[in-house]
Amino acid sequence: MIYFDNSATTKPYKEVLDSFVTVSSQYYGNPSSLHNMGGQAEKLLTQSREQVAKLLEVKPSEIYFTSGGTESNNMAIKGAAMVNRNRGRHIITSSIEHASVLEAMEQLAGGGFDITYLPVDKDSNVSVNDVEKAIRKDTILVSIMQVNNEVGSIQPIGKIGEMLKKHPSILFHIDSVQAIGKVPLSLYRNRVDFCSLSAHKFHGLKGTGALFIREGVRLAPLLSGGNQERKLRSGTENVAGFVAMAKALRMTMANGELGIAKLKKIQEKLRAGLNEFDGVTIHTPLEGAAPHILNFSLDGMKSEVFLHALEREGLFVSTTSACSSKKKSPSKTLLAMGVSEDLADRSIRISLSFENTEEEAREALTIIKKTVNQLRKVMN
Amino acid sequence: MIYFDNSATTKPYKEVLDSFVTVSSQYYGNPSSLHNMGGQAEKLLTQSREQVAKLLEVKPSEIYFTSGGTESNNMAIKGAAMVNRNRGRHIITSSIEHASVLEAMEQLAGGGFDITYLPVDKDSNVSVNDVEKAIRKDTILVSIMQVNNEVGSIQPIGKIGEMLKKHPSILFHIDSVQAIGKVPLSLYRNRVDFCSLSAHKFHGLKGTGALFIREGVRLAPLLSGGNQERKLRSGTENVAGFVAMAKALRMTMANGELGIAKLKKIQEKLRAGLNEFDGVTIHTPLEGAAPHILNFSLDGMKSEVFLHALEREGLFVSTTSACSSKKKSPSKTLLAMGVSEDLADRSIRISLSFENTEEEAREALTIIKKTVNQLRKVMN
Repeated sequence: MIYFDNSATTKPYKEVLDSFVTVSSQYYGNPSSLHNMGGQAEKLLTQSREQVAKLLEVKPSEIYFTSGGTESNNMAIKGAAMVNRNRGRHIITSSIEHASVLEAMEQLAGGGFDITYLPVDKDSNVSVNDVEKAIRKDTILVSIMQVNNEVGSIQPIGKIGEMLKKHPSILFHIDSVQAIGKVPLSLYRNRVDFCSLSAHKFHGLKGTGALFIREGVRLAPLLSGGNQERKLRSGTENVAGFVAMAKALRMTMANGELGIAKLKKIQEKLRAGLNEFDGVTIHTPLEGAAPHILNFSLDGMKSEVFLHALEREGLFVSTTSACSSKKKSPSKTLLAMGVSEDLADRSIRISLSFENTEEEAREALTIIKKTVNQLRKVMN
Repeated sequence: MIYFDNSATTKPYKEVLDSFVTVSSQYYGNPSSLHNMGGQAEKLLTQSREQVAKLLEVKPSEIYFTSGGTESNNMAIKGAAMVNRNRGRHIITSSIEHASVLEAMEQLAGGGFDITYLPVDKDSNVSVNDVEKAIRKDTILVSIMQVNNEVGSIQPIGKIGEMLKKHPSILFHIDSVQAIGKVPLSLYRNRVDFCSLSAHKFHGLKGTGALFIREGVRLAPLLSGGNQERKLRSGTENVAGFVAMAKALRMTMANGELGIAKLKKIQEKLRAGLNEFDGVTIHTPLEGAAPHILNFSLDGMKSEVFLHALEREGLFVSTTSACSSKKKSPSKTLLAMGVSEDLADRSIRISLSFENTEEEAREALTIIKKTVNQLRKVMN
């Protein structure tokens, strides 16, 4: 089996799952309890927060644990909107964001906010100039993803952050769910106020994530109650899940430059192999893309049929983002890039993890070739 | 070690943790993925939903998985408020609700809603008449907990539901986090629209919970995005966590009447033993209380000092709800019952699980006696 759908979700590392089990069975106290079983759990939570903070080069007090990327995105966007609504109701985002950003924006639009959805160029990149031109007196938030989840384009977060230094009252949220560990991230230097992470995208467990909130930045909590996570995210903390997330992040980041170079090599091999096929269009830009995503279309190969045919040969890929794959509508990102609906209907996303190998890429290309030949024969 | 702090959190059942590990390591696909690994995960999710629904005697389509009790309470209350705000902005709740209900209400009050906090009697019970008298033309929601988390009083959910049948446009939310498995629950008969559950209170895992939403009832999602959970709760589903929760609920409910009778017997033994102490006040009502909570004060024993002294002898209890234990302010529930601040400052909560035994209750009483004698000697 070759699992090339790592942008949908990854297999948890064995060590990560082991940590989860140890904490769940031995340190199951509620971190809010006054006794020592609570104290032990709280200590583990503190250590996890410190680890995540260290890996992101920020302060532990800037890390807030959540139930995942969707919660982190909703918490940042709605929370910032609520707390700043008397100051302004204009928000800038892009047309290629993840559904959890776009839908949060739609809800805010229904509540009287005005949302600017920036276009992207043919390489699926937002332009810094477009962001700057969209800024108004009532703009309170800019929300841009670091790496697009469908084609892997890296957005100019550094440049946008630099430009936003001239606008200190505008908050800057980045969705780093697809980027973390694979594309460099510098939260302070890039003037980021909020950054969303999801553990199951880097071999952690589903149901765990984090939101970086820069010191001094306020937001209204989505989940209020017992005032956990310094009052911004109530609910008994999933201690074992956050210990597991910290470990997964450490293991992922340990791949470092070498791991990224290895990913790039696999990606290049796949790109070169696919380029030899008749009627191939590769949507992932050649320059400025994350090393783990490759999105392409092949003439005559309808996404879903093709996906299931590949699956029968043991190759697991996706048609678009997992969240949108059952909608059966063509990829928003591809359409925003100017790809035709016909081509978008045939898109396939390969997404790698550090666990994948060049050997798997070779095998995958063989499977794709065999499958394309079979399907084209059937159709003719 | 005697763990009598089960209302703060419970130890996950071994079988529950085993299920989590199996699903996380073998069925880690994203349920939204089109391929078979997604399909397998989706099937497990569907089965879990069916199991939970069956145990609650409702339809699978009425069960929504969440990250826990706090999210379920926030989702029901804020979601119902948002969707009905043009119809009315009055909500009725009680003064003894969990922080995740009370704080959600406070946020809504800040957003233009009018909240009625009903008082309770000396046994910590809301009166059905008070609920009825509080109803106005603009009342959209009544939110009452099934079992109070601090003293264990059972609220008259059945009678309130019956009365609310005359007011079909008012939504009825119950927080069953402390009740499930220990106090009978009949969602349809009691005319309940929303019901919150938290898995880690019944030997499931932290970070998982559920919200029952009666068929046809609408709410605005707190977490929007990929439209998981029939569009009401987006975010990649914590499949392993929900499989584990379904198992924990099944195992908990399997204790049945016999298990509840056993719990009651332990509770009675503790009550009888405590009643022999000089200067004891038992806050948990003799009639109409859940079988697993016993809240009391002892003359001269400041809660926190007492708790730590008991802990040194291997007995783990709490001073109040876990969520509030670090606030150092006296229990809201006790004050609402008319208990003096002085007495509330000395309250200790024992909370049992089906795993506890009569033998443990005997030992606990011995430890309490020894500790009280020591502390009183020191103080004299």
